[in-house]
Amino acid sequence: MSIDFADITAARDRIAGHARVTPLLSSPFLDDLAGRRVLVKPECLQVTGSFKYRGARSALSAMDPITRSPGVIAYSSGNHAQGVAQAARDFGVPSVIVMPSDAPELKLANTRALGAEVVTYDRATGDRDAIGAQIALERGLTLVKPFDEPMVIAGQGTVGLELADQCADLGVANADVLVPCGGGGLTSGIAVALSSKAPGMIVRPVEPEGFDDVTRSLASGRMERNTAMTGSICDAIITPSPGALTLPLMQAHCGPGFVVSDTEALAAMRAAFLRLKLVVEPGGAVALAAALFQSRSIQADTVIVILSGGNVDPVHFTKSLAE
Amino acid sequence: MSIDFADITAARDRIAGHARVTPLLSSPFLDDLAGRRVLVKPECLQVTGSFKYRGARSALSAMDPITRSPGVIAYSSGNHAQGVAQAARDFGVPSVIVMPSDAPELKLANTRALGAEVVTYDRATGDRDAIGAQIALERGLTLVKPFDEPMVIAGQGTVGLELADQCADLGVANADVLVPCGGGGLTSGIAVALSSKAPGMIVRPVEPEGFDDVTRSLASGRMERNTAMTGSICDAIITPSPGALTLPLMQAHCGPGFVVSDTEALAAMRAAFLRLKLVVEPGGAVALAAALFQSRSIQADTVIVILSGGNVDPVHFTKSLAE
Repeated sequence: MSIDFADITAARDRIAGHARVTPLLSSPFLDDLAGRRVLVKPECLQVTGSFKYRGARSALSAMDPITRSPGVIAYSSGNHAQGVAQAARDFGVPSVIVMPSDAPELKLANTRALGAEVVTYDRATGDRDAIGAQIALERGLTLVKPFDEPMVIAGQGTVGLELADQCADLGVANADVLVPCGGGGLTSGIAVALSSKAPGMIVRPVEPEGFDDVTRSLASGRMERNTAMTGSICDAIITPSPGALTLPLMQAHCGPGFVVSDTEALAAMRAAFLRLKLVVEPGGAVALAAALFQSRSIQADTVIVILSGGNVDPVHFTKSLAE
Repeated sequence: MSIDFADITAARDRIAGHARVTPLLSSPFLDDLAGRRVLVKPECLQVTGSFKYRGARSALSAMDPITRSPGVIAYSSGNHAQGVAQAARDFGVPSVIVMPSDAPELKLANTRALGAEVVTYDRATGDRDAIGAQIALERGLTLVKPFDEPMVIAGQGTVGLELADQCADLGVANADVLVPCGGGGLTSGIAVALSSKAPGMIVRPVEPEGFDDVTRSLASGRMERNTAMTGSICDAIITPSPGALTLPLMQAHCGPGFVVSDTEALAAMRAAFLRLKLVVEPGGAVALAAALFQSRSIQADTVIVILSGGNVDPVHFTKSLAE
């Protein structure tokens, strides 16, 4: 079961009035750095501080109320966690979130503050899918997967619908659209939306060094996996491999990926601080990093950057400012 | 010469497509802290990182092209500086900006980078009005005052028009509207706009300790002055006294003011970082500080907070995160 454009417009109708329409921002300083026009879609301003609320609200709103009422469960490094916790709170149902024990403090604390029960596991040795499936079975909860779930992908795709409208208003028909990419839910959702609504846009995933499974998968034509599960500051987008649903969508609609270093991600966080007055987490800043520091790999006159989230602890944010 | 509602709608038409319509944001965490609904208007996301671009663009766009073409001059602690520099660049005319020598590095650097010629003076001993007037005379430049200028007030008032529309969409008719206040251009502009368009709103200025000239003037009924010109981290809103134009408008339309400490401003900056993913400068955070930490002085169920700017150096921002 995959998704198509109609699933995304249906998701938009379901989440309207709950998820925010985020603006499209720019700065002449960023244009100068990138050597072209840079348009920025700040999903750090989304409810719960990341785009993940779109997919979570989309998934819960698509559930039968009888299925939804016992509650939902999710496994997440922290942004999907908060999205699902908030969506469950919206609908007045319980949520259990399985999170890695080394998730940022802010993400753990916020998820609990939004009313979720948090269960932690070891990122290097634990299998979050197995843990989530078992608890779901025991308690009769519905699992909301972080990316390989049609209604989640459809919800993330609403970013693409907004982008298409906002770019049409600006007269921008052709651009590279750079998207921070973990499992590919956001990237594939935006790609499906734009392939119908703005076919002159090329969606391109951006990943951290060592966790470039999607970039390699797009290049090789088969599903590639990462060897490590720790070792990047970009906690939000560390996943073992692309999804079984997301990879074919990305293969059908995406251009080649980018791989950025932790240093580049930190420098992009600083640029967002200085030039956009936005707080962006490391994983949320990788697309801006590619636009600013790998501009020779971009051909279009305009580059569109998704800032996917802003849930970063003060101590880690301070590191980006000290660069 | 004062301004009325029609001046503000005319300013909106002139700046449309150049100044940004900023969103209205919220967070359940801020609601909990404040004990009521908090709606936030982030002018830190405005072009040049503060609301000042609205007034500058409004003023320059209202000038006769023959008057405008030799260029403009402004005196400013940094946000009006950037707004005027950007507006002058928009129209392709020169700008000279008179800035205090202790203005934040970021504001000095940005103003120069936007193409302005920067002239510095000593904030404690210099008279920026006199310096500005002299250079204007020598070079045939038109002075764009930071707040006591009708077309500037009208431009700042466009924040109020947007607020009225956004609150109507949410069904919010009654609220206290807290505005960071220096000379009163933003406060009086919003107050004039809302008095016509959303009369259930009460606009209230917020100032830093030691620089509460507007709060005292509203209480006493006459123009009060500050004794010092340095000694607060809130550099953006340190002014000697209310304006001759802005004070009568505030007397006609505003509720009582708030006075917040530097510590409260820093804590509000941290809350904006954590809960809104926004970078706010100290002076831009004072209204949020009043909403969060002086909630007993607010009666309405909803408080609306203007975040007026985000131009803060990394080293000073880091202080707010270390609290």
